[in-house]
Amino acid sequence: MTNVLVSTVPFASHDRLPLELLDSVGAHVTINPIGRRLQEEELAELIPATEILIAGTEPISRKVMEAAPNLRMIARVGIGLDNVDLLAARARGIQVTYTPEAPAPAVAELTVGLMVSLLRHTHTANALLHEGQWHRFMGRRIGESTLGVIGVGRIGSRVIQLLSSFGVRRFIAHDIAPQIGSLHGIDVEWVGQEAIFREADIVTLHVPLTPDTRNMVGRAELDMMKANAVLINTSRGGVVDEEALLRALQDKRLGGAAVDVFSHEPYEGPLTQEARCILTSHMGSMSIDCRSRMEAEATREAIRFLTGEPTLCPVPSQEYLIQSQAEGSTQ
Amino acid sequence: MTNVLVSTVPFASHDRLPLELLDSVGAHVTINPIGRRLQEEELAELIPATEILIAGTEPISRKVMEAAPNLRMIARVGIGLDNVDLLAARARGIQVTYTPEAPAPAVAELTVGLMVSLLRHTHTANALLHEGQWHRFMGRRIGESTLGVIGVGRIGSRVIQLLSSFGVRRFIAHDIAPQIGSLHGIDVEWVGQEAIFREADIVTLHVPLTPDTRNMVGRAELDMMKANAVLINTSRGGVVDEEALLRALQDKRLGGAAVDVFSHEPYEGPLTQEARCILTSHMGSMSIDCRSRMEAEATREAIRFLTGEPTLCPVPSQEYLIQSQAEGSTQ
Repeated sequence: MTNVLVSTVPFASHDRLPLELLDSVGAHVTINPIGRRLQEEELAELIPATEILIAGTEPISRKVMEAAPNLRMIARVGIGLDNVDLLAARARGIQVTYTPEAPAPAVAELTVGLMVSLLRHTHTANALLHEGQWHRFMGRRIGESTLGVIGVGRIGSRVIQLLSSFGVRRFIAHDIAPQIGSLHGIDVEWVGQEAIFREADIVTLHVPLTPDTRNMVGRAELDMMKANAVLINTSRGGVVDEEALLRALQDKRLGGAAVDVFSHEPYEGPLTQEARCILTSHMGSMSIDCRSRMEAEATREAIRFLTGEPTLCPVPSQEYLIQSQAEGSTQ
Repeated sequence: MTNVLVSTVPFASHDRLPLELLDSVGAHVTINPIGRRLQEEELAELIPATEILIAGTEPISRKVMEAAPNLRMIARVGIGLDNVDLLAARARGIQVTYTPEAPAPAVAELTVGLMVSLLRHTHTANALLHEGQWHRFMGRRIGESTLGVIGVGRIGSRVIQLLSSFGVRRFIAHDIAPQIGSLHGIDVEWVGQEAIFREADIVTLHVPLTPDTRNMVGRAELDMMKANAVLINTSRGGVVDEEALLRALQDKRLGGAAVDVFSHEPYEGPLTQEARCILTSHMGSMSIDCRSRMEAEATREAIRFLTGEPTLCPVPSQEYLIQSQAEGSTQ
């Protein structure tokens, strides 16, 4: 009987399929008993007997892997790999898979919703009205805006696609691998990163967390932004310098910000004191359909591994290269 | 010198063009000094010397018109006419114009934003995080939903168009004048009103307030809705029975509601006690571009009237017919 640890939460809360699949292959399943994102030490305590880890965004460090002598496979429920020490995994012969496609639709929709909330002040009007205060906020429209997208992969391109009928004035985009010409038939101008900060009314981030993107949005970038521009981060905590963002908002710069991801989660930092920052709790992928798909895909990868079939989404070599370059640069 | 009363607020707050236009024809302009939507009596006190009224949603009743012996024209800033006694205006020879096109883009975008907020619980997560509580809400996607639209005129059709790239499972629509086949190339199923309530995951209302639509969504309709369906009203207060909606939400039926318009505004009723109801303060048209366009269009109609040119958007005869039928039905 194979010991499977599910460290991500929630898991199978709306659809029991993943647990049924694991049952069907006779796995012995332990689910994160703490019910929230685990700290490194907590995971190290839970993991010793584990052979297959079905994982969220908790830190899967070298130390954690060393605590699990029989660990042979990590199936990430989701796309980000910044929490997994891929080099340590490779050195130990631990296979790592992920589910890069599944979260995109849910993250993209949340991003669009946050844009409207920011531009129209619906969250503020809602809070005030529930306190008995009627204030008609004047807002702006996505359709009148220049939309700046940094990171045009699965999610960034989907945000552009969702907004293709909104009459957006200009789509400007930046990516380390810029595409040429139109995207799904939509006119996109490929520009440098600085042009995004200087020209966009809405800046939205859809990059992975890598050494190159850590603190990519800091004081200098926030200072470049238009007085009324809004910033949305549904990508990864650490991409935006939270201190610099707080200062910009406190100084009444920017038209507001929406942050779904944080350097340390659960987040309880000083952005909670800033009403002009919409805060959500890493909910980008949290739609029933996408979450179910992520869980099922990760579980099926675990079962493929268990039954000796090839996995469908092993982490590509480029991801190892990124971490290897990062390690080099910190030595 | 012509006396112009601007009873709507805000007015020319982001773009002074309307005031400059009125200056250029030598009008004597008075702006609503109370700074909020006027009550009937307040308007009656302000209006006596007025020849042209540039109006919002305040009640322009027979009594108000009787207080203004020289009133010759009403230019509505906006589309709804439920607040203007058109028959009294016609009897007095007062011309009425409106700006039916201008608000649509802003109302449609707000509607989409409210859908995402409701389905993803962003308003709740935001409120909790600002109190230091991290809770990852599981939500749903527009893209996985059946979208039900009641009233497919300028705004309803625009909502459908905005969502054309979201992968909506089914668009079902109801209108007193159903269109055949596709709308802007989007597949729309035209169904009876009851089917909207029974089958839609998202019900959004885009009808004018008329005798036929008053309390159109009451207890019976709310009872028909799916357990998790959400209701959005950015059309007119009075279309939804607020008491019935409150009861449904208190009884934990529906997945939530978002209400931008109320029977009595400023609203301070019991829906303010219900966290599962997103409340905004009649902000549908409140984007700078749409509001500016509405104000400029209404002002230009007033100036056309003043200078003897034909107006471009006189209220169509059908609107008079609706009010005349309503008056008949209450006698």
